[in-house]
Amino acid sequence: MAVATYAIGVDFGTEACRAIVVDLSDGNEVGVVSLAYPHGVVDDLFPEDGSKLPRDWAIQYPSDYLTVLEHCVQGVLVQAEIDPASVISLGLDATACTLIPVDAHDTALADLAPYASNPHAYAKLWKDHSSQPQASRINAAALERGEKFVDYYGGKISSEWVLAKTLKLAEEAPEIFAAAERIYECGDWLVSTLVGEETRSAAVAGYKASYQAEIGGYPTADFLEGLFPGFADVLGKLGWDFLVPGQRAGGLTAQWAQRLGLPPGIAVGASNMDAQVAMLGAGISKPGEMLLVMGTSVCNLMLADEREFVPGVAGLVSDGIVPGYWAYETGQAGVGDTFGWYVRNMVPAEYVERANAESKSVYELLEEMAARMQPGESGVMALDWFNGNRATLMDSHLSGLLVGMTLQTKPEHIYRALIEGSAFGQRIIVEAFRDAGVPVTRLVACGGLASRAPLLIQTLADVLGMEIEVSRSEQTPALGAALHGALAAGSAEGGFAYFGDASRIASPIAVTYAPNKSRVKQFDELFALYRRLYEQFGNEERAMMHSLRAHASQVSNNKTKE
Amino acid sequence: MAVATYAIGVDFGTEACRAIVVDLSDGNEVGVVSLAYPHGVVDDLFPEDGSKLPRDWAIQYPSDYLTVLEHCVQGVLVQAEIDPASVISLGLDATACTLIPVDAHDTALADLAPYASNPHAYAKLWKDHSSQPQASRINAAALERGEKFVDYYGGKISSEWVLAKTLKLAEEAPEIFAAAERIYECGDWLVSTLVGEETRSAAVAGYKASYQAEIGGYPTADFLEGLFPGFADVLGKLGWDFLVPGQRAGGLTAQWAQRLGLPPGIAVGASNMDAQVAMLGAGISKPGEMLLVMGTSVCNLMLADEREFVPGVAGLVSDGIVPGYWAYETGQAGVGDTFGWYVRNMVPAEYVERANAESKSVYELLEEMAARMQPGESGVMALDWFNGNRATLMDSHLSGLLVGMTLQTKPEHIYRALIEGSAFGQRIIVEAFRDAGVPVTRLVACGGLASRAPLLIQTLADVLGMEIEVSRSEQTPALGAALHGALAAGSAEGGFAYFGDASRIASPIAVTYAPNKSRVKQFDELFALYRRLYEQFGNEERAMMHSLRAHASQVSNNKTKE
Repeated sequence: MAVATYAIGVDFGTEACRAIVVDLSDGNEVGVVSLAYPHGVVDDLFPEDGSKLPRDWAIQYPSDYLTVLEHCVQGVLVQAEIDPASVISLGLDATACTLIPVDAHDTALADLAPYASNPHAYAKLWKDHSSQPQASRINAAALERGEKFVDYYGGKISSEWVLAKTLKLAEEAPEIFAAAERIYECGDWLVSTLVGEETRSAAVAGYKASYQAEIGGYPTADFLEGLFPGFADVLGKLGWDFLVPGQRAGGLTAQWAQRLGLPPGIAVGASNMDAQVAMLGAGISKPGEMLLVMGTSVCNLMLADEREFVPGVAGLVSDGIVPGYWAYETGQAGVGDTFGWYVRNMVPAEYVERANAESKSVYELLEEMAARMQPGESGVMALDWFNGNRATLMDSHLSGLLVGMTLQTKPEHIYRALIEGSAFGQRIIVEAFRDAGVPVTRLVACGGLASRAPLLIQTLADVLGMEIEVSRSEQTPALGAALHGALAAGSAEGGFAYFGDASRIASPIAVTYAPNKSRVKQFDELFALYRRLYEQFGNEERAMMHSLRAHASQVSNNKTKE
Repeated sequence: MAVATYAIGVDFGTEACRAIVVDLSDGNEVGVVSLAYPHGVVDDLFPEDGSKLPRDWAIQYPSDYLTVLEHCVQGVLVQAEIDPASVISLGLDATACTLIPVDAHDTALADLAPYASNPHAYAKLWKDHSSQPQASRINAAALERGEKFVDYYGGKISSEWVLAKTLKLAEEAPEIFAAAERIYECGDWLVSTLVGEETRSAAVAGYKASYQAEIGGYPTADFLEGLFPGFADVLGKLGWDFLVPGQRAGGLTAQWAQRLGLPPGIAVGASNMDAQVAMLGAGISKPGEMLLVMGTSVCNLMLADEREFVPGVAGLVSDGIVPGYWAYETGQAGVGDTFGWYVRNMVPAEYVERANAESKSVYELLEEMAARMQPGESGVMALDWFNGNRATLMDSHLSGLLVGMTLQTKPEHIYRALIEGSAFGQRIIVEAFRDAGVPVTRLVACGGLASRAPLLIQTLADVLGMEIEVSRSEQTPALGAALHGALAAGSAEGGFAYFGDASRIASPIAVTYAPNKSRVKQFDELFALYRRLYEQFGNEERAMMHSLRAHASQVSNNKTKE
């Protein structure tokens, strides 16, 4: 028997980082360690001076990523009880678009004294939606000029993405914009730090930085300069040489090898996003198969031979997941996040006490109560846009809606409505693919919510009228990241030469949820109502939610000025 | 100085009864006692057998009214430390339409063994909305036949009213309908019980039983029989001889004089509804002046010389409040109720703990937090239809809506949205009066919510752009009831001959809320959004809320059958 070899995968999520050790002979996960970021998500008070961040901001401390990386990797090596010398590779994934401005030495500006007091110097987290005005202007300008790049993103780019975030930076913090030698995606910054030189991921550039090779790369300097004088400089701060998924970024530097307790020089893979690497983690490689990565948000990914412009698909990237295929990305902006918001802000003490008395989490209690209800029994319907709509409308300034409440409505009714609303939102996406001629033939779900929220998954099966297969691994992104690292190492160093080889040790399916015929029928009727609400607030009356948000922002900004 | 004389007023509310003793020389309230009904509002499990009541039911125990009447009157006499012999009258008001079926001796059927196990035999509380299908059929038939009576009720009658409730009774509980010698409004039953003979109030018949003297009284037997065979029998179970407000119903029987500790034979006044008697309690007597009785719901009342058919006005009754004037009634179906629902079902433990730590109620804490916000700052808007819409749409199957929530939305944001939504709903009413040519020239608020919810009243002033005067008495209905009793006694017995005389000792204004100019402007913009939502869900897309409720009822009924 050959000597065991291992790959480490590290998944940088929104709230926490987790590292796993994977046995490359069989895919077994022999260790998992997770740690929350010390400063978490900063979206209210800025810790450096206690000031209130403007509405819709969400930032993080870049140094937090390095701190937890070190502790997670050291910890997982101890937990796995393996010889560190048998680790052949390190692969990672991270949230995107999460942007970090750095100096010429790749040091985050947030860690440099002159900039540390400016929140613009920090990592702008993917869910920072404060650049919506910029996104709207970019989209309007692109439409006016007939720019082709937006076609790859459902006709418009998101406030979450590189162009919107960097334009806001150039406009509102010109000193940070000027000082930024480079602006990195979080994952690219981490990989560059680990290998000691600038590296960039083609996939992330395609998804988030509007880079499309077949039309010449980024939007033109002329276009960018027209948005704001000097903004074309951003082209010099982003990458131009790219690595495809599974490619080797470099060898682990001696300094980082020491900090992590790993052998120096082992392969570090190109970074990609959590959902993208999860495709390999879940063993998906064929066109028509869709992966749902279910956590705070839901990310939908699919491979296809054809490039069809599916309305609302937020990313259409060649080589975005597996070299040689077009990768489609879309999703729902708030799912687990919304349940979390609800439980934190809307569940009365009585339910918390009852859950405690029954030794359950509040989620488990509510899910149990909601599971006893039939479709539509709550009388309440939700538009699941509490974090905006990323599905087909690409509009982060849409918001949540609950309708149908009476004085008899109980917390479990609203919880049930949130679950049904999430499932209806997913059906909107699947139908958009079908209508565009890229039908979904198989659905695999992974991520924390897929294993922890059985009612949500069953409801999804019933609403879609399709089987949902749930991946066994609870760490599909971390597993996928590890397999990408092993691809970077290549077969000569004990890793893999091809995606197909790596997928053989990917996570098996743990459980398959079959749709229930009678509920499918009930949900068909309810979905017609959901679609009506979706049309009303998403198209005909979209100004409603925009106006409410604009009023709130205006008041809030006036208060900040006072 | 003359010997002091006193009047007792008793207000039968939704959750509790309160009795006051009023000094007839100056209107001082020398005693107030309040007691909750032993069985409360029964809207979930029926205590007699533990069975689940169907959706939208709300019943009470008739015997509860008598029990609390006895305890409240005895208690208030002790508290006031007056000689019972100096009490010259008893006046009362009660919720309506709250129907009690009785036998030939005026004993409630619920108190008779053969019927006690049938929830239909109990008092159907005003807010029982289970007769909506009947109301819809009555309205459709009235429209088809061109029946004039509906013109007095904004074009349609409510599911809360006599015809809808009794039609449901005739259809679903024919044995109770047949056994009911009479069907009383709660207030009429109480007065009849106290004076020992059947008495009926013209006002309540006008508001709730579709009785309009100028078009011949009740809807015709022919019309009623067409709704359901045998339903015309209801005409024999309702009253035909009526007392106007302030008229003497009779003398207190010896038996009840003993039970209450009052002199036998003292005047008992005709009953009326809480809001109607509150007009006199608040000293309102002129056309154009509107009273808002603010509690679980808000009742809007106004006197006018003219009879205009204001769209959506739910009651237009000659002699309905003061003999000689037309009385307009409309209102909001759920206000205090909605705040109560919210606090019970949607406020997290953290807020309850904080309120406890600061020795406040949760309402006070939320109101404090909401008061720090500007109009629209919450970003959330509510349609205040959690108990249906009684304002201009007269549709109890409409429901609540919340729009604009994000993951940053906090409980105080939603609380603020509920307050703003209630105020917007009130503006819809005031504008409907103005548009129909019966402008509102003055607004007086009374009731528990008027004195306990300053932010709501200020918001009302800001949203309406009008001053709101708040009546000092917290017991305006009970005070009004007492003054009606004193009118029934007449001047010869130490009471009053005319409404104008009685109004001189009515409650003074405690505080006047002036509109804030800058907020008035902000709210004007927000109100345009509210009106848009109102039109959408109330007219163009009314099917949405109806369909959601229909689905829920269907599932719930199927479950009950299983």
